[in-house]
Amino acid sequence: MKEPQSFAPEPTTGGPTAPSAYRKPNGEAPPNAGDPLILPPGIDSQTFKSFTQRLADIVGQSNVTIISTDKELHQESYLDPSKAHDMFYVLEKQYFVSSAVVAPRDVADVQAIMRLCNEFEIPVWPFSIGRNVGYGGAGPRVPGSLGMDMGRHMNKILNVDVDGAYALVEPGVTFFDLHDYLVKNNLRDKLWIDVPDLGGGSVLGNTCERGVGYTPYGDHYMMHCGMEVVLPDGSLVRTGMGALPDPEADPNLPPHEQKPNKCWQLFNYGFGPYNDGIFTQSSLGVITKMGIWLMTNPGGYQSYLITMPRDEDLHQAIEIIRPLRVGMVLQNVPTLRHVLLDAAVMGDKSTYSDSKAPLTDTEIDAIAHKLNLGRWNFYGALYGPEPVRAVMWQVVKTAFGQIPGAKFYFPEDMPDNKVLQIRDGTLQGIPSVDELRWVDWLPNGGHLFFSPIAKVSGDDAVAQYKLTRRRSEEFGFDFIGTFVVGMREMHHIVCIVYDRRDADMRRRAHKLISTLVDDAAKQGWGEYRTHLALMDQIAATYSFNDHAQMKLNEKIKNALDPKGILAPGKNGVWPQTYDKVAWRVPV
Amino acid sequence: MKEPQSFAPEPTTGGPTAPSAYRKPNGEAPPNAGDPLILPPGIDSQTFKSFTQRLADIVGQSNVTIISTDKELHQESYLDPSKAHDMFYVLEKQYFVSSAVVAPRDVADVQAIMRLCNEFEIPVWPFSIGRNVGYGGAGPRVPGSLGMDMGRHMNKILNVDVDGAYALVEPGVTFFDLHDYLVKNNLRDKLWIDVPDLGGGSVLGNTCERGVGYTPYGDHYMMHCGMEVVLPDGSLVRTGMGALPDPEADPNLPPHEQKPNKCWQLFNYGFGPYNDGIFTQSSLGVITKMGIWLMTNPGGYQSYLITMPRDEDLHQAIEIIRPLRVGMVLQNVPTLRHVLLDAAVMGDKSTYSDSKAPLTDTEIDAIAHKLNLGRWNFYGALYGPEPVRAVMWQVVKTAFGQIPGAKFYFPEDMPDNKVLQIRDGTLQGIPSVDELRWVDWLPNGGHLFFSPIAKVSGDDAVAQYKLTRRRSEEFGFDFIGTFVVGMREMHHIVCIVYDRRDADMRRRAHKLISTLVDDAAKQGWGEYRTHLALMDQIAATYSFNDHAQMKLNEKIKNALDPKGILAPGKNGVWPQTYDKVAWRVPV
Repeated sequence: MKEPQSFAPEPTTGGPTAPSAYRKPNGEAPPNAGDPLILPPGIDSQTFKSFTQRLADIVGQSNVTIISTDKELHQESYLDPSKAHDMFYVLEKQYFVSSAVVAPRDVADVQAIMRLCNEFEIPVWPFSIGRNVGYGGAGPRVPGSLGMDMGRHMNKILNVDVDGAYALVEPGVTFFDLHDYLVKNNLRDKLWIDVPDLGGGSVLGNTCERGVGYTPYGDHYMMHCGMEVVLPDGSLVRTGMGALPDPEADPNLPPHEQKPNKCWQLFNYGFGPYNDGIFTQSSLGVITKMGIWLMTNPGGYQSYLITMPRDEDLHQAIEIIRPLRVGMVLQNVPTLRHVLLDAAVMGDKSTYSDSKAPLTDTEIDAIAHKLNLGRWNFYGALYGPEPVRAVMWQVVKTAFGQIPGAKFYFPEDMPDNKVLQIRDGTLQGIPSVDELRWVDWLPNGGHLFFSPIAKVSGDDAVAQYKLTRRRSEEFGFDFIGTFVVGMREMHHIVCIVYDRRDADMRRRAHKLISTLVDDAAKQGWGEYRTHLALMDQIAATYSFNDHAQMKLNEKIKNALDPKGILAPGKNGVWPQTYDKVAWRVPV
Repeated sequence: MKEPQSFAPEPTTGGPTAPSAYRKPNGEAPPNAGDPLILPPGIDSQTFKSFTQRLADIVGQSNVTIISTDKELHQESYLDPSKAHDMFYVLEKQYFVSSAVVAPRDVADVQAIMRLCNEFEIPVWPFSIGRNVGYGGAGPRVPGSLGMDMGRHMNKILNVDVDGAYALVEPGVTFFDLHDYLVKNNLRDKLWIDVPDLGGGSVLGNTCERGVGYTPYGDHYMMHCGMEVVLPDGSLVRTGMGALPDPEADPNLPPHEQKPNKCWQLFNYGFGPYNDGIFTQSSLGVITKMGIWLMTNPGGYQSYLITMPRDEDLHQAIEIIRPLRVGMVLQNVPTLRHVLLDAAVMGDKSTYSDSKAPLTDTEIDAIAHKLNLGRWNFYGALYGPEPVRAVMWQVVKTAFGQIPGAKFYFPEDMPDNKVLQIRDGTLQGIPSVDELRWVDWLPNGGHLFFSPIAKVSGDDAVAQYKLTRRRSEEFGFDFIGTFVVGMREMHHIVCIVYDRRDADMRRRAHKLISTLVDDAAKQGWGEYRTHLALMDQIAATYSFNDHAQMKLNEKIKNALDPKGILAPGKNGVWPQTYDKVAWRVPV
């Protein structure tokens, strides 16, 4: 059993059989003065050097970066600071950090790396782009894991099929890349992509973390079709119709280069057990190719904003939204945003107030007034030819018009409303990065997402809002949040913004989210996704029948990855080779 | 390793360690004269009697039926003839037959049965209603399995939630049951169900076999939400949000009776690996409860028929359908049916022709003329308020109007067209059983479905049609088929109708479908679902990278079901305790 070092680890007693060789990389003298290596758990520096040499034999020296405490990590010099650790660290920056980062050049490299990690029993943490912001970025769950940068080289759009309205992408393809491809090839009049708030992340990575966007294709997992996956033992699987060889495939090519079945991106399920879901939010395989359905241009589009003046309008708004959404009058994934989220996109806190404390209702009202926004602001869109949109808009206006003081705007009515201009793009699948400006609400801003699933009901929305706002303020934070309305539920996304250089504030942010997880579980609310630091706690709340689901997950994990080399601890699933209690993150 | 008896099994040498005690139940003298028992493989009659006694201790004697070759099976006296074997048998009737059928009263019974089957190492084959017609009915893959009749007692609609637009059902709830519930509770103006062609089957069973229906909610698996599953070891899992306990759940109740989480039917994915898919077309668990999303009344509906006169119109029709379907102008799952399918619903072959041979083009044209139908007939529907439907209809009419001789009908235009009247119900989620009349095309009609997935392209449709018609005629059958148009592919459903009492015709039907599976695989086409007799052959066509997907399936199977007691061989997945080569069904 591999046991973690504590947060301030003791020096290793040395030797390859020592339980852990992970060293605190910064601030304290490493056990061997002058050796600034970070090591995988239970691996000594000599073994680690042999391992990285073997890695270099596979991918070439230039594709292996050793993370050194006195250079790369400290100076954030590995390509992008997010690639070896969590850019928005909430624990110490060097907590969720990789010992090295490898960038495979192709699927065969990934397979060889998996086999090598099995041989050395070293954990490997794949990431696509590393922009899993608010949830841990590129950082590994187990400190000292080998980071595997899937996106650096494997970043090709392999196919865009106009007739079938789909794309086949590698891990490094971002939403920007895919959108740009459509624009450059004059396909935007035919096909749209769906984008989350930020366009810089990986299409494949976001989908496999079950991220959402805002067009009618907002449920990315639902809209994926077909995966190619390297299993922990290094074998390669194509799921669904991809398991059926194409008659034109060249058997002399390596499997990952073989021409795929023409129905791979057309039909998800194939024959027999449908396995794709077990590769999402999971440590059971490394996805190397994925199909994603694209939306056909709907033949017309109109985004809009509805402002609602009072805090208590939340209840009525949600009750209005539910039947419209389930009835597909609201055709896409709309959002109901608290005014401070919009305010934060348009300015930092100091532009609105000198207060260091959470803003009061009076102060929030003043901001809403200044921005010509409501306390709650609904961003939606209409899709289709004009007569269809007209029918929908009439229904929407009548319904929201029941809220006293509700106002209706199209983007041209509010040219200075940055959020409405951004959302006008986002809701038609045009990527941007502007939305992340809210992270600058505080200086040196970092953030955590608290993301419980809510029933689309006024009571549930108000209860979640009241709870999360009260707790936020109790720990000294402003409530910044949004309700993202799916088919039959809402992702309630609460953005906990903190100053990364303020250790006390980070501790409070961590304590806040941890408290909220427990508060929510007591009400029967669970989170859909979380930061590395919260994975164990949240997994433990999904405890029906003595944690039967986790026992199932562990059985499958141990069957597919007996040495526990792939992403141990991801989403709370620990392989048999780890003492899962010892690895809990202290709050 | 358990080995099967051959189709005409040798008498067992007796004793509990004999490789198989399965006996030919009919026609030949059983090994012990006067003992008409059918036995599970490798189980002697004494052990079997102990087993069935223990079964009776669990569920009560009245819920255990021993299948006896000289009574129940022969006389088809077990409640319904479909419950112990395949109603539409293509091999000998007694081939895919259960040794006994048990009807659990609740989830605790299912758990106890699974543990008992592990203790005795006896295979168990669950079915919901047993109406998996064309794919094996209630028959087990391994002769002599214990049939588990999930639907006999576990047939409750546990919840219909109008706000959330979903139902929670047990295995025995049929499409009729669910529809009737809506009608009786005056909910039909709010909620619609989606139905396949036949309404007598199980909602849960159909969904878990990945069956489809014809409204916008036609992809049943996509529209399911949340499962409760008994694993092969008898443990009980709730997936997705169901894994999060409800705060009002009574911990003193058995887990399966505990109040579920209120988001269980609202959000599919929960936290961590999304496992639901591995329980479909699979032998990894017995689903005891399932959520299904219901469609809200769209506020308007109009079904229609478009007839196209010539055989070669197929190509153009499909090319017209593709962009309309992916663009959601065709909002539901429409069908393009060959005229003989419609003809067979409205009469048997003898009403149209004295020919025993496959009908010629001239004869088929005469039938089309007589019925006022085209060679190809497109059944679609419009959903939404009148202005929305008007926009859609205009686009549909213009598009199909390009086909010379295409004619457009609403149901009121053709009161005598039974198929259009049936489809008018089916496309708005009203169940019926009338469609199955086509099985009476021949006397004593039985059928097999050949169901390849096709790209929505004229070339692919024509190639599949030509291949399947040519082969059908080669083996002496009429081509009876339909293209069922999903989001981006078509389920091409070919109905192979045969006279069950004609052993030669059954052999030809079996040979035909087996030939078609190989023909299709050579073109890169694979089937989405199949009859018991074809499972191994089709699974073998999904062979990418040396059958990597099957190796993955087997690893998971062996981890969750080490003794291989649950549905061995289902969809070609054999547990380690079976010699999968020996169990192949001879063609």
